[in-house]
Amino acid sequence: MIRGDLLYEGKAKKLYRTDDPNVLWVEYKDDATAFNGEKKAQLAGKGEMNNRIAAFFFRYLRENGVDNHFLQEVSPTEQWVRKVTIIPLEVVVRNRAAGSMAKRLGLEEGRMLPRPIVEFYYKNDELKDPLITEDHIDVLGLATVDQREEMKRIALQVNDLLGKKMQELGVTLVDFKLEFGIDPDGRLILADEISPDTCRFWDVKTGKVLDKDRFRRDLGNVVEAYREIWNRLEGTTP
Amino acid sequence: MIRGDLLYEGKAKKLYRTDDPNVLWVEYKDDATAFNGEKKAQLAGKGEMNNRIAAFFFRYLRENGVDNHFLQEVSPTEQWVRKVTIIPLEVVVRNRAAGSMAKRLGLEEGRMLPRPIVEFYYKNDELKDPLITEDHIDVLGLATVDQREEMKRIALQVNDLLGKKMQELGVTLVDFKLEFGIDPDGRLILADEISPDTCRFWDVKTGKVLDKDRFRRDLGNVVEAYREIWNRLEGTTP
Ligand SMILES: Nc1ncnc2c1ncn2[C@@H]1O[C@H](COP(=O)(O)OP(=O)(O)OP(=O)(O)O)[C@@H](O)[C@H]1O
Ligand SMILES: Nc1ncnc2c1ncn2[C@@H]1O[C@H](COP(=O)(O)OP(=O)(O)OP(=O)(O)O)[C@@H](O)[C@H]1O
Ligand SMILES: [Mg+2]
Ligand SMILES: [Mg+2]
Repeated sequence: MIRGDLLYEGKAKKLYRTDDPNVLWVEYKDDATAFNGEKKAQLAGKGEMNNRIAAFFFRYLRENGVDNHFLQEVSPTEQWVRKVTIIPLEVVVRNRAAGSMAKRLGLEEGRMLPRPIVEFYYKNDELKDPLITEDHIDVLGLATVDQREEMKRIALQVNDLLGKKMQELGVTLVDFKLEFGIDPDGRLILADEISPDTCRFWDVKTGKVLDKDRFRRDLGNVVEAYREIWNRLEGTTP
Repeated sequence: MIRGDLLYEGKAKKLYRTDDPNVLWVEYKDDATAFNGEKKAQLAGKGEMNNRIAAFFFRYLRENGVDNHFLQEVSPTEQWVRKVTIIPLEVVVRNRAAGSMAKRLGLEEGRMLPRPIVEFYYKNDELKDPLITEDHIDVLGLATVDQREEMKRIALQVNDLLGKKMQELGVTLVDFKLEFGIDPDGRLILADEISPDTCRFWDVKTGKVLDKDRFRRDLGNVVEAYREIWNRLEGTTP
């Protein structure tokens, strides 16, 4: 496989073409951003941790019946993935209120929800990724009703699988964000990344924050926390 | 019926107790507020117009099978209503994108939607009445699933009835907000007010704004526009 032109540079990853039109070459960057790109930093080693952790989760999910875009790791910071057309939605699953949900609803950070819920945010930087309703998805034509229901179903399945795995490792899965795409055959598949940049992870015993909130809230030792997640995952069979 | 103590003073109305514990005495005020109370004015005659228009709509809805809190008009600015426990939700029906929806989704003001949609906002001044999802309503315990579905059904029925009536009068019903309450028997009923303060009305021919947006957007002649709505309604049999 040959790494071709840079197709897109996002805040956390670079996507390159390859000689296979169905395959993208993803490079996880060390850049950290928060608050719609207002806060920025370089965190040496973050790209490697996220590449390794995302690869681990995608493999684990595939082995447990959740198809996704991951193909294989090709370097400490790079992986090949199936190229899809991303649906412009951030699909968030929450087990506890935290972050924007806690703020929006006036709930205490970490307050347990009676059941996991799925939220949709419109992936649109100019509009600052607003929360939207299922009807908004429909009238904007962002996804069909079937795709929307399928995304909810998969998101809750991912929550069950990731939650179980992290629980075994002494980590609480508070919430996470997924992105989905449509492959050339029109199939919906899980894409993008699953990492401490896109999940909230709290140590079960100490409550220690082991995710991007360390960066957002200036808690320090960001990459060390990501490495802590990686070390715990690495020690297990996926 | 005797007007008793002031029970609650809101931004647009005063609620008084009566000698009947199931009845409230509502006075529509001339106060106009917008943007969560940041913008304020006194508009002589607004209270009268809203009292008359709301009474008209509530009568019209009852005659067409939509039960609601309205009992009777008792002065140009006052009406009796059944006391309910208000569900802290603003139930918004939209036929076209406008206001906060147009802004949230980056849509042109007035853009026709493929079908009417219902949105829920959490009535909470401190949180600035945020848009919420059906799952949020459920996990916060703001309404049961049955109540939520019933509110949606009634809201769309009100949309059909009001839309038809306004169309006959040469007015486009762009969107509106409803509030619901629970009566002493546990029944869900439509409450609060339906008026140019809570609806967007545009003249079909000229596009002239005939609602509270005249105040929000400093278009002038606010009460004259409300009176225009009232004059058109008054000329019809409800
Ligand atoms: N399999 C895939 N095929 C095509 N695009 C993908 C795939 N997986 C992820 N992407 C897209 O790659 C882009 C780069 O990722 P990155 O996380 O850096 O973006 P971002 O800056 O977070 O957000 P934005 O999506 O707004 O650019 C994202 O737009 C993401 O949706
Ligand atoms: N039938 C009813 N029984 C009890 N309360 C009612 C009834 N109808 C309306 N209300 C309540 O009357 C209050 C006063 O109305 P008003 O429109 O002035 O309030 P507001 O300032 O817009 O908003 P807020 O609800 O935040 O006070 C509102 O809280 C409304 O929910
Ligand atoms: Mg991203
Ligand atoms: Mg009100």
